[in-house]
This record gives sequence, structure tokens and C-alpha cells, in this order.
Amino acid sequence: MNFKEKVETYMTIHEEKVRIVDRLTDRDTLISEITSRYEKHFAQEITRLDYLPDTSEVTEVVSLLRRLLFPGYFGEEDVHAASREGLAQSLVTEIAAKLSCQICRILNIETGKDSNCADMFGSADEICRVFLSKIPQIIEILMTDVQATYDGDPAAQNRHEIIFAYPGVFAISVYRLAHELHLLSVPLIPRMMTEYAHSLTGIDIHPGADIGHHFCIDHGTGIVIGETTRIGAYVKLYQGVTLGALSTRGGQSLRGARRHPTLQDEVTVYSGASILGGETVIGKGCVIGGNVFITQSVPANTRVNIKNHELEYRPV
Amino acid sequence: MNFKEKVETYMTIHEEKVRIVDRLTDRDTLISEITSRYEKHFAQEITRLDYLPDTSEVTEVVSLLRRLLFPGYFGEEDVHAASREGLAQSLVTEIAAKLSCQICRILNIETGKDSNCADMFGSADEICRVFLSKIPQIIEILMTDVQATYDGDPAAQNRHEIIFAYPGVFAISVYRLAHELHLLSVPLIPRMMTEYAHSLTGIDIHPGADIGHHFCIDHGTGIVIGETTRIGAYVKLYQGVTLGALSTRGGQSLRGARRHPTLQDEVTVYSGASILGGETVIGKGCVIGGNVFITQSVPANTRVNIKNHELEYRPV
Amino acid sequence: MNFKEKVETYMTIHEEKVRIVDRLTDRDTLISEITSRYEKHFAQEITRLDYLPDTSEVTEVVSLLRRLLFPGYFGEEDVHAASREGLAQSLVTEIAAKLSCQICRILNIETGKDSNCADMFGSADEICRVFLSKIPQIIEILMTDVQATYDGDPAAQNRHEIIFAYPGVFAISVYRLAHELHLLSVPLIPRMMTEYAHSLTGIDIHPGADIGHHFCIDHGTGIVIGETTRIGAYVKLYQGVTLGALSTRGGQSLRGARRHPTLQDEVTVYSGASILGGETVIGKGCVIGGNVFITQSVPANTRVNIKNHELEYRPV
Repeated sequence: MNFKEKVETYMTIHEEKVRIVDRLTDRDTLISEITSRYEKHFAQEITRLDYLPDTSEVTEVVSLLRRLLFPGYFGEEDVHAASREGLAQSLVTEIAAKLSCQICRILNIETGKDSNCADMFGSADEICRVFLSKIPQIIEILMTDVQATYDGDPAAQNRHEIIFAYPGVFAISVYRLAHELHLLSVPLIPRMMTEYAHSLTGIDIHPGADIGHHFCIDHGTGIVIGETTRIGAYVKLYQGVTLGALSTRGGQSLRGARRHPTLQDEVTVYSGASILGGETVIGKGCVIGGNVFITQSVPANTRVNIKNHELEYRPV
Repeated sequence: MNFKEKVETYMTIHEEKVRIVDRLTDRDTLISEITSRYEKHFAQEITRLDYLPDTSEVTEVVSLLRRLLFPGYFGEEDVHAASREGLAQSLVTEIAAKLSCQICRILNIETGKDSNCADMFGSADEICRVFLSKIPQIIEILMTDVQATYDGDPAAQNRHEIIFAYPGVFAISVYRLAHELHLLSVPLIPRMMTEYAHSLTGIDIHPGADIGHHFCIDHGTGIVIGETTRIGAYVKLYQGVTLGALSTRGGQSLRGARRHPTLQDEVTVYSGASILGGETVIGKGCVIGGNVFITQSVPANTRVNIKNHELEYRPV
Repeated sequence: MNFKEKVETYMTIHEEKVRIVDRLTDRDTLISEITSRYEKHFAQEITRLDYLPDTSEVTEVVSLLRRLLFPGYFGEEDVHAASREGLAQSLVTEIAAKLSCQICRILNIETGKDSNCADMFGSADEICRVFLSKIPQIIEILMTDVQATYDGDPAAQNRHEIIFAYPGVFAISVYRLAHELHLLSVPLIPRMMTEYAHSLTGIDIHPGADIGHHFCIDHGTGIVIGETTRIGAYVKLYQGVTLGALSTRGGQSLRGARRHPTLQDEVTVYSGASILGGETVIGKGCVIGGNVFITQSVPANTRVNIKNHELEYRPV
């Protein structure tokens, strides 16, 4: 059907539809139908909508934290030696203010408070202080991730390139920050943070995962690391790797259960491989080949591959 | 080659290139060469460039629609009970104005109009009215998608998390909106909308696909759902799933043909699986395992897996 | 554990943590710990941080270049015939100014200059002139990519849709621009450019790859094309394809070595396939099936598939 026919078809559909619209949906009727849906589905939220976390504030906090972790790389500031303390001070202050406010909002909602944003503010503020006290350790561990990424990739020219142009480093940074908030039982905000990184990198790391130092992700698009995954030190993952559950058909009944695998130290997993199940342990030093699908444990220092003879060759 | 050598090489290349540039591309020559390319390749567009749709306006419409579908989640507004009608009213008005303008532009182009934006405005305006009349139904069906996503994922804490942090919900929302415009034969705009969602989520759903209620996508990166796909109710897809064509080597000659599969109700497809072909039907209740590659129909209530013994284990 | 329990747990953790915080991290101590990390890990950068390239300027340059390549599609300007020269002129001027500045910054860093941005400005300016002289050729080759994408996809309605809504075209555009800067030995900036495209499209093309005309990417999410890949003319890749290295466990010792495959003319690679290794050559006209994993050369005009009988069917 070419476009002229489509327009004619549209006009036919259209005349009929317009009659429906005239009958059904003058604007007042439409608005009334939409608001009745709001009452049906969002009754709770619309009595206290100003307390829901603000996505743009949460992503702004991530950007500020990234500037704090990698001074001079992602901001506009002039941070010569003389002003480096000033940089840290102003970023810490701004992050604390914004993050406290968002944590306060979600604590109010989750604890059933209806009143204004100040109610849980004391708790939110303390959570922020504990969280910020982890920043020096987070910088230390991220530097091991940057180093591992550089050492492992012959295409990398220097550390600047790793920090500026490796999405894995960004995704791991956000994960390490979100993980600390997750350990402090902050609801929702850690997931909003890692989901922001997921949208920019295609790398989906749940804040609940436990990941060691010298962690390296190359390319990264399509990686999924589930909530109860445990990853040792010096592990490297390529694009498209799933560390997932065997089945989630149990749905909410499985909440809290161990569903995702363990990767011990020095494991490498090549692109497209899937490692599934809470009892699956990949031993130290294993190399898991591309597109491999594993649901059982593998002893240390084993190389696992799919077999090549499964291919068939025919003339085109 | 280290950087100093590179700089020297550059300088050598450079001196030679500069001579070429001096000969070829003083700025006037460059501009003239570029504009002659414009005439060669964009002659039609550059006589009426102000009528092409505006990507930033289309993405703004998507953002406004998202605020209309999930009141209070993605905007700054205070929408207590008293003002919920006001929210719906102002969003509907703004969406109608912006969307009509973009539809008008593309209708002008596709119907060969050269004149200004008002020509097709009546049609565009009516299309918008029909489209907006679907919003209440779209809210209803999206709430089933949100519920299915929550029920199916033990990692999900509550509905807030589903709406804020599940890219599948965003991609499905944009698809459901774009699908209605597609049914109204609006050219291009529905594809711009779903491509915007694709860029943010890695989930590529063609507006032409036909998808039932309680649809759930988990993680989602790398999912492709082709133009003529049909999906029943209560279907769940994981990351990296392709619902595609067997071959598109026929190219434009295949336009309009059924090329993509059918998934009946209650089908689950695990990560990395590919289901291809217009005659492929996955029966009700099937579970398709990770990385499975299917080009033939599967009877109802069948679990399809790849076989594990294809792996080989060697010492590292 | 429900949320109330979590809050209680948090309060317990919290009281203990607060004591730690009180002991460890009053704000002055925190700032001092962070700045000592800066000195340890970023000593070099923080003496000259104002010279690092600016991510937002580099992405702005990409946006301006996109407007120059596809006049009228991605900007707000009215570019009727009379003003098309003005469009090219103003964009070229703006691009030259911004790009020179960023190239200058990275040249200063890489050549060990400590002084202000003007030092390498002459070189940066000349690199820009050479780069811009390639724009007419880049427009020519991109038009072949647009044509190939249109011809190959029955879901595509027209060229507008290809330019507006095919992420492959955006990723290829950015690659073709970055490749020219790479050939001119510009450090880092080309990788920042392709990484920006990667974040928007999920398509990761290294600027060092060598790619012929009529190149087509469909859907694209998850594609990786490594640094030393060579791709002929009329090649088509689907989502999830890896053109990668056999192993990068040699890390930095492999820098500069040929590690990625060659695809000769008219090769098609379906979704999820991996083709690995610097000595792997896929001959002219080959068709590589979905999810195929190849580490050896394939003679011309061969169709390679995985075998279907590896699936097992059981009742759910």
C-alpha cells in the first residue's frame, strides 16, 4: 500500500473515528477519562506526588559523584593543586544536599509518612554522611578497575582513554556508588542510579551484586549482572554476558533467594556467554568462551568452549 | 609506534596534506564542494527543509506523553488530588499542539505539498484528537504491563521501582503510543518515537508489531521485535531476544509481507534467543531457553533448550 | 525482609556507622582523605586539569558535524536554496573552532606540554583543516551507506526514515568522521566520538577499523567492531555481531598487532554471530548465520549456519 492509498484509508478510518471521537472524546470527556484512570491506578501517589524521587536530580547526583571520583575529567572547573580541596569541598556539599533530599523522599514513602519532606530528613542526612565517608575507598577500588581495564586491552592508549571512553568504567563506578547505598538499605535510589548507567552503556549491574577489585568490562553492551551475583577480584567480562537466574518463573516468591552465580578470582568470560543459577560456581582462573551457556559449576583453571564442528557450510 | 613517532609521522603526512589542502580546499572551495554535495544528494529536502520533522520536538512529545501516562513520576509538578485535572489538561494541550505540528510536517512532505505548514494541519489535528482519545486505554494496558513486570521479577521491590527503573516499561510505553499513530497511518513519527526509546534502552520494537496485554521485558538490552511480529498476552522476553525475519536479502521487494514470528499467550523467551520467520508460531505456554535459535513452529506447552553436552572442558 | 525490618536493620547498622563516622569522617577529615587520593592517583592531571578534553564539547562537535552531513535533518535552521551556502559556512566555522581547541588540549597533554592551550594550536588548526577537507568525500560515502540501508530493509519507507531513525547510520557517520581523525594520528578525540555514538546506539566501532562503502547496520545494539577489523564494500551486519579478537589475554603486549578479522565484499552477518581473530578472512559473498561462532577463515560464497538438531523439546 503506497502512501496515497494509506492517506485514503486513513481518511476512511478517520471519518469513522472522528464520529467516535465526537461521540466519545470531546476534550472534557477525555480529561475526565484520564483523571478517572489516575484515581484508579495512582490514587496513593497522587495524594503525595511531590514526594516521589526526581529522576533528573538522581542523575545529577550521579554526574556530581563522577566529577568527585575523577577530578577534572567531567567538569568545567579549573582544579590546579591550589584549588583541589575546594573542588572536593564544593562537590561533597552539593552531593550531600541533593542526595539527602532524594533519600528523604523515598524513606517518607516507604515508611508510610504523608507529611512533608522534613520527616525522615535526619535519617537521610545520616545515610548520606555514612555514604560519603566511603568515597575515598571507592576511589581506591575504582583505580584498580581502571588499571585492570588498561592492562587488559591492547587497543587502549592510556588512562585518559580508559576514563573518558570506556563505558565499563562508568557502569562500574555507578555500581560501586549504588552498592554502598544498597548496603545502607536505601530503597529505589540505587536502582535509579544503576538504571541511568544502563541506559547510557547497555550494562545492567544490580546494586545488590558483590564485585571485587580489578574488575574489567570491555565494550559492555548487553551485560546483565543479577542481584545476588558474587564476583571475585581480577574478573573480566565482555559484551553480552549474562550472569543470571536459571528461571524466575517463581516471581516474587523467590525474593531474597540466591539466584545468580559466583565467579571466583581471575575468571574471564567472553562475549555472549550466559552463566546461570545460584548454585553455579565458576572456579578461580577459568576462561569461559564466547556464546557458552552454563548452568553448572566449573572447577578452577578450566577453559570452557562450544565445539566448532556444529557449523554447517553450504554454497550460497 | 609511540606518540612522538606518531606526531612526526603526522607532521610528514601533514606537510603533504597541507599542500593538498592549499591546492584543494581553501575555505571557499570547501564550502562550494559541500554545497554541491547538498545539491546532488539533498536537492528535494533543501527546497523545503523547514518542513522536516524536528527530532527534538518528537522526543519532547514522548517525554510529555510519559508524564501523562505516569502522573507525578517524571515531571516537576505538584499534582495533589485538587490539581490532577489541571495536570491532564495542560499536558494534553501541550502534546496536541506539538504533535500536530510534527505530523503536519511529515504529511506535507509525503503528500508532495510544497507550501507552508498549515496545508495538512486539519488532518494532523484530527489524527491527534483520535490518538489522544486512546490515552485512557493505553494507561489501562500499561498498568497490566507494570503488574506483569512486578509479578515476574523477584528483584523488584514495588511498583515505583518498576516505573522508575525498568527500561522495558519505558520501551513498551513508547511502543504502545507509537503503535496507535502507526495504525492511523502516520509516517515516520512513530519510528522516530520508538527509535528514541531504542537509543535509551537498547530495546528496538517496531511500531507495526502487535503486542497483547501483560507484556513484560526484563533487562531488555539488545531486544529486536520486527514490524510484522504478533505477540499474545502474558508474554515475557529477556535481554538479547530477536523476533526477526529469516532473511531480508529480498530487501524492498518484501515490503508488507509477513516476515516475523507469532508468539501466542504466556510464552517466555530467555536471553539471547532468536525466533525467526513469518510462518514460525510459538504455541501457548512455551518456554524458549537462552541462546536458542528457532526457525520453525513449536507446539503449545513445549520447553525448548540447547543441549549442554556441546561444551568442551580443557585445562587453561 | 520487609522494609520495616530493613529500616530497623538500617537503624542498627546506622547507629554503629554513625559512631564510625563521628570518629572517622567529620567533613574536614573526609575532604582531606579525598584530596590525598587525588594526589596519589591524579597528581599529573590535577596540575593541568584545564587542558583535558571536554566531553561536552566533543559531543557538541559531533552534533554539528551531523548537521553538516545531513543538512536540515538535525538542526533548527531554515536552509532554503538561497541560504545553503550560509549553512555550510557557519557550521564549518563553528566546528573548526571547537574541534581545534579540543585537539590542541590533547596534543598538549600527549606531547608533555604544561603551558596554555595555544602551544599546539597551530598543529591542531592544520589537522582540522585537513579533516574538514574530507567532508565532501564523507558525504559521498555516507550516501552509499544510506542507500544500502534503504535497499536492504523491507521495513524502511524512505530515505527520511533511514536518516532519522536508523541508529546504524548515526554510528557509521560518527565512525567515518572519527576514522579520518584517527588517520591523522589525533589521540583520544576519535575514541570519545565513537564512544558517544556507542552510548546512543549500542554500536561500538573502533575508529581504527577500515570499512568500505555501502555499509549497512540493521538494529545494531550490541555490535562490536574491533580496532584492526577490515570490512569490504556492500557488507551488512545485524544486531549483536562481534568482529573481535580471539583472545586479549596478552593485553598491552599485543598493541598494534592485527587481532580482528577481515570481511570481504558483499558479506552478510546475521544477529549474534561472532567472528574472531586477525587471520580470519570471510570470503566475498558469504552469509554468516545467526549466533554462529567463527574463528577460522571461510571461502567465498559460503553460507555458514549452526545446526538445528541441537535443540531439545520437552513438555513444560
